[in-house]
Amino acid sequence: MKITGTFIDEITHDIPSSNWGEREWEADFQAMKYIGIDTVIIIRNGYRNLATFNSKVLSSNFDMINAPIDLLELFLSLSDKYGINLFFGTYDSGKYWMNGDYQREVDINKAFTEEVNDKYGHHPSFQGWYISHEIDTYNPDVMNVYRQLGNHLKGLRDIPILISPYIHGKKQFAEDPTSLEQHKESWDKVFAEIRDCVDIVAFQDGNVDYAELYDYLLVNSKLAKKYQLTGWTNVETFDRDVLIKFPPINWPALCHKMDAATRSGVDKMITFEFSHFMSPFSIYPAARHLYDRYCESVGLTPLNAGVESDTIRLGEILSDRLENSIADTSALSNM
Amino acid sequence: MKITGTFIDEITHDIPSSNWGEREWEADFQAMKYIGIDTVIIIRNGYRNLATFNSKVLSSNFDMINAPIDLLELFLSLSDKYGINLFFGTYDSGKYWMNGDYQREVDINKAFTEEVNDKYGHHPSFQGWYISHEIDTYNPDVMNVYRQLGNHLKGLRDIPILISPYIHGKKQFAEDPTSLEQHKESWDKVFAEIRDCVDIVAFQDGNVDYAELYDYLLVNSKLAKKYQLTGWTNVETFDRDVLIKFPPINWPALCHKMDAATRSGVDKMITFEFSHFMSPFSIYPAARHLYDRYCESVGLTPLNAGVESDTIRLGEILSDRLENSIADTSALSNM
Amino acid sequence: MKITGTFIDEITHDIPSSNWGEREWEADFQAMKYIGIDTVIIIRNGYRNLATFNSKVLSSNFDMINAPIDLLELFLSLSDKYGINLFFGTYDSGKYWMNGDYQREVDINKAFTEEVNDKYGHHPSFQGWYISHEIDTYNPDVMNVYRQLGNHLKGLRDIPILISPYIHGKKQFAEDPTSLEQHKESWDKVFAEIRDCVDIVAFQDGNVDYAELYDYLLVNSKLAKKYQLTGWTNVETFDRDVLIKFPPINWPALCHKMDAATRSGVDKMITFEFSHFMSPFSIYPAARHLYDRYCESVGLTPLNAGVESDTIRLGEILSDRLENSIADTSALSNM
Repeated sequence: MKITGTFIDEITHDIPSSNWGEREWEADFQAMKYIGIDTVIIIRNGYRNLATFNSKVLSSNFDMINAPIDLLELFLSLSDKYGINLFFGTYDSGKYWMNGDYQREVDINKAFTEEVNDKYGHHPSFQGWYISHEIDTYNPDVMNVYRQLGNHLKGLRDIPILISPYIHGKKQFAEDPTSLEQHKESWDKVFAEIRDCVDIVAFQDGNVDYAELYDYLLVNSKLAKKYQLTGWTNVETFDRDVLIKFPPINWPALCHKMDAATRSGVDKMITFEFSHFMSPFSIYPAARHLYDRYCESVGLTPLNAGVESDTIRLGEILSDRLENSIADTSALSNM
Repeated sequence: MKITGTFIDEITHDIPSSNWGEREWEADFQAMKYIGIDTVIIIRNGYRNLATFNSKVLSSNFDMINAPIDLLELFLSLSDKYGINLFFGTYDSGKYWMNGDYQREVDINKAFTEEVNDKYGHHPSFQGWYISHEIDTYNPDVMNVYRQLGNHLKGLRDIPILISPYIHGKKQFAEDPTSLEQHKESWDKVFAEIRDCVDIVAFQDGNVDYAELYDYLLVNSKLAKKYQLTGWTNVETFDRDVLIKFPPINWPALCHKMDAATRSGVDKMITFEFSHFMSPFSIYPAARHLYDRYCESVGLTPLNAGVESDTIRLGEILSDRLENSIADTSALSNM
Repeated sequence: MKITGTFIDEITHDIPSSNWGEREWEADFQAMKYIGIDTVIIIRNGYRNLATFNSKVLSSNFDMINAPIDLLELFLSLSDKYGINLFFGTYDSGKYWMNGDYQREVDINKAFTEEVNDKYGHHPSFQGWYISHEIDTYNPDVMNVYRQLGNHLKGLRDIPILISPYIHGKKQFAEDPTSLEQHKESWDKVFAEIRDCVDIVAFQDGNVDYAELYDYLLVNSKLAKKYQLTGWTNVETFDRDVLIKFPPINWPALCHKMDAATRSGVDKMITFEFSHFMSPFSIYPAARHLYDRYCESVGLTPLNAGVESDTIRLGEILSDRLENSIADTSALSNM
């Protein structure tokens, strides 16, 4: 199975900005299209005081930072042009729902998504909603958020609604990781409650050990089928195991996770996320190589973003120099 | 208002070295000049055992690491050539003044700056002193350092003296941030004492929330006017909000800070710092894109350091491949 | 003295993967060869569930992640081709020996190295063993590991055995650093016990202050001579002093360490490690510049991996633009 969807994390919790303009983003969409990406999910269109565009709703509630580029318009236009479905991620205040004021989080998002639907609803690529408020276990208050928001979003525009929960796993919560059985029970309860207001669930796959990933994927896949939800997996392409937080993942680990996902019967693989961690234009050079490894593995000619510009040309210079120095040595030893 | 000054942080507390040689530094000065930088500030010419050149004074006091390139000579020569004013940053022992032995810190710096003035004083670009010992509040001992050093430096060479304090703000000191009122009182006291030995004050702008920055800038600007000091702002171009410490800042946040500074009436914007965080030659690719965003915003043709070498060429390859694959599909569907 | 050996850290504790394929690795070996590298040490051929190839022994003991490329075959072939000696690093379970189950760590490695010798023993470049289990002080259990493994490895293939201990120094263990005297006593005891099963000792050089490094190197060098061991030094090319863990080291610090090593009388300098921290193809651009600085210092033409592709071309564009803008200004002022 191929990776056919990706988050776009330009309004971010913790990942550095690439500072791309329109030209760089278009090149990135081309690179996505080339490997078969048909879905992009804007992970959130606003977080605290940053947003993808200058929203009247957000500006009337918060001290927003001006958006010099309308990223939502840009991403929708590029999605229109390249035949990609775009999922719109909701606003995350970073405070109300963290502090128990769930209703305020819901109310702002109702107004925000109305504004968005009015302003950007004409884009044919606007094909999904993404509720950005992540959970890892049953939480009755967030169930209520999902129900209220889900119904509202469906009323605005009847398109699929996606969530991407995380697993309370040992790689992120070493002190009190959940067991597979606890995970199953908890999410059985969640799915029973959200089945009417959410369509697709894409668990993040980086919170558990590589060895136990398949078992979790299988449970998730079966739970999704039980409640007639669509089950995607969010194949994280960043590395949680090294000191820098976070660089692109290593290729063997990515292969392992894609293989586990394919065997588990998930409906689709998406990733967090292409533009930083597996793009040939990434600010992290290791991502450029990861793109090539991925291309090779699915039978596509690699782009060689790293290789063409550096390795080949410099490799040729080095080859020449090495040959000359060997020739020199031979000349000397022949004397 | 444009950014017209930058620190040079090659002798650093915590930022990785670019390992540039003369050619790379000259290119960087050209890139600075192109966007209108007229002032560079060497943030410190010595820190613990590293210095910009092999100083006799420092070597007789500390186990110094040899300086393979005379960076001070290089920076002064490039400043001469490109018509840039250079501010010389003092030595920071990293220990004496931290441990209360202020006099020793002063005495070493007196001897060090004499050596520097003798050796490098002929450079016409040598146009300012920078006292590298940063504070965030009134501190009578450091006032004494400023007074002693300030008088000494003025005696050596009567050129402007700059300091760049930080604000004890909530982004860096979440547990006990200062209030705007406390900040104002404290710095009123500082300015009253240093007005005779310091000429320019450039507060760092990254320690407070984006929403409160303008208020702090306004207070700083008014205080400077009250004491007839020149008020610059140090617009940090690195990002304090992400997990990696530190990458280039995101463009919307930089726009926000430049706008707040312009409205507040500061005399000049400088940045910490160009070469890592907004240079087209930066070791951080996101900085190369930031340079282009900045160029566009001030009406200059962007350099497209990232785009020309990667995006355009690879984008063309991708466009061709995508067209061919669409052509192939059409051919198939026409059969 | 030149750096003539390097670790290869593709199976890593904490360093991000470059995601290189065969072409990139070959270019990297060319770049090593060009500066005179004659020895590569695969730091470990397996760590927890990742390995350089799909080992039957490891797969029967652990849930291994599939190795999409046989890196051991690749590194041996490249070493054969470029006339480089390869040291094979043992498997590190990351648990047994940490938890006191030393015998299990030994037994797995006996079987693993037998498998390796059978499968890869025909490569002429297979010229050394590296025991990857690092220590910083006398430890009777690890002495036993070294003795058992050393004898086993010698029996399999009578080639030199290398270890690379760390110093319990103040840069890594600020709270209870060892003194030089304690270090000497402890390692005198270690060397007395391992002299028959280890041939080469290459202490890591980054755990102590720059000022005290020479003294440690001298002690290590004398101890090696006393016990007729070969004494190498592992000149770390990453920077432990900045916030990002870890970028390439700054050039003056590397010069300092190479100079101290040369004066101390070590037999050879190796580094941890070339491909991330001083390669012209590194994912860290500062490493590309470090390679050039190193080339210049040993009288080789630098490769200018960073300069050719960016600085020169962009520098020319900038020069043109700057000249034109000066010409424009002159034209104006002549009117």
